[in-house]
Amino acid sequence: MSRRSVRTERRLFLADGPKAVAGALGVAGCVVEVFTTPAAVGLVPAVPDGVPVTLVEDRALALLSDSVTPAGVVALCRYVDRPLAHLLDGSPRLVAVCAEVRDPGNAGTVVRTADAAGADAVVLAGDSVDLYNPKTLRASVGSAFHLPVAVEPDPAAAVDALRAAGLTVLATAADGEVDLHHAGDLLARPTAWLFGNEAHGLPAELAARADHRVRIPIHGRAESLNLATAAALCLYESARLHRS
Amino acid sequence: MSRRSVRTERRLFLADGPKAVAGALGVAGCVVEVFTTPAAVGLVPAVPDGVPVTLVEDRALALLSDSVTPAGVVALCRYVDRPLAHLLDGSPRLVAVCAEVRDPGNAGTVVRTADAAGADAVVLAGDSVDLYNPKTLRASVGSAFHLPVAVEPDPAAAVDALRAAGLTVLATAADGEVDLHHAGDLLARPTAWLFGNEAHGLPAELAARADHRVRIPIHGRAESLNLATAAALCLYESARLHRS
Repeated sequence: MSRRSVRTERRLFLADGPKAVAGALGVAGCVVEVFTTPAAVGLVPAVPDGVPVTLVEDRALALLSDSVTPAGVVALCRYVDRPLAHLLDGSPRLVAVCAEVRDPGNAGTVVRTADAAGADAVVLAGDSVDLYNPKTLRASVGSAFHLPVAVEPDPAAAVDALRAAGLTVLATAADGEVDLHHAGDLLARPTAWLFGNEAHGLPAELAARADHRVRIPIHGRAESLNLATAAALCLYESARLHRS
Repeated sequence: MSRRSVRTERRLFLADGPKAVAGALGVAGCVVEVFTTPAAVGLVPAVPDGVPVTLVEDRALALLSDSVTPAGVVALCRYVDRPLAHLLDGSPRLVAVCAEVRDPGNAGTVVRTADAAGADAVVLAGDSVDLYNPKTLRASVGSAFHLPVAVEPDPAAAVDALRAAGLTVLATAADGEVDLHHAGDLLARPTAWLFGNEAHGLPAELAARADHRVRIPIHGRAESLNLATAAALCLYESARLHRS
């Protein structure tokens, strides 16, 4: 279950630790079964009727847990991602798209930040890291269960679908023609932000497919910003203007 | 040299990889000696007269490098941090203070972001992570060599010194009385931002010592933001208002 291939085939993953289990329990129908040790049973969040809670030995729980020091509570969960088309039915106003993002910590942090910024959805597009990677879930600090996430292997198809749903598609690019802080009314529109790979940014053809390319001003001598940092600045700038 | 105690006593550290070495070479007097393998000698940046470049065997370089796959270029460097008082001589307008920040990746990312936002200095205050930890340097992507950094073990003394230098001291706090996006003219002033520990935030007495406590609005269901994300939003909001 810690291997992506096994997870993907069964569309099942493990939520590890009381916080992650509580998050998964917040999504109706997500949790299949909760496992805990006798010592940790007090840490198990309130579990609805119909979801079994099974006591196991420490050794068995350690096999289920990805953690070096397991907290003693693990849940077997159904995948929570939804088809992109379903997300777009709700007329979203702010969507974060990770294209080819490889680092689970970065992807999880973008999900957490998108949640905080009040985004309506996150799309993991292309060959991005698995949402159910334990490190992605941990970095999302529960937000993977707070807002809808779609997985779309074809980033160009994602861009086209988002635009067809009435969203202006903005690509982050170091040499973008629009300055984030001088974008005028552009950011006040319903927006899908495209964030690219941590090392290589967005593929050129994907950036060209967006409606505009936006650069974050660099005032000092840094060459670039961390991916999750860039995403936070863009999503919060949209949130500020959408809500002002 | 990979142990903090050894570094601190000698005030020497190792810059690992061509990028880090190039960054260190950008600070006059920082690099004591460059080590490289015959295979990697082409990766060595331009080295000024008086700085020796020593060829070593792969095995010797592997001992100097913190990396699993060493790039073959390492420099022995003098510490670059300066006393806080020196930094304040230059009438800074934007300073980032990390208080009790423990994670090297977070601290390095804050240094990188402060550089990008055009901050004048970073202060590592209290029992914060070592600037010269290889992971801190790596996460700073060269910015540790771009802008002045001070190390101040007493965070309260840092706050007092920053205020005495004419800076308004703003603490980030989840329950702060000022909303980042509705702070009026407050953020247009010369500002020192205080960022706290990744798990516990700022100590209450330090937050109370600031002139104001600022909260970042959380529009969704996330409980909080990642420390480096929060720092980016605050520093860039100051930069936007300082430069508008």
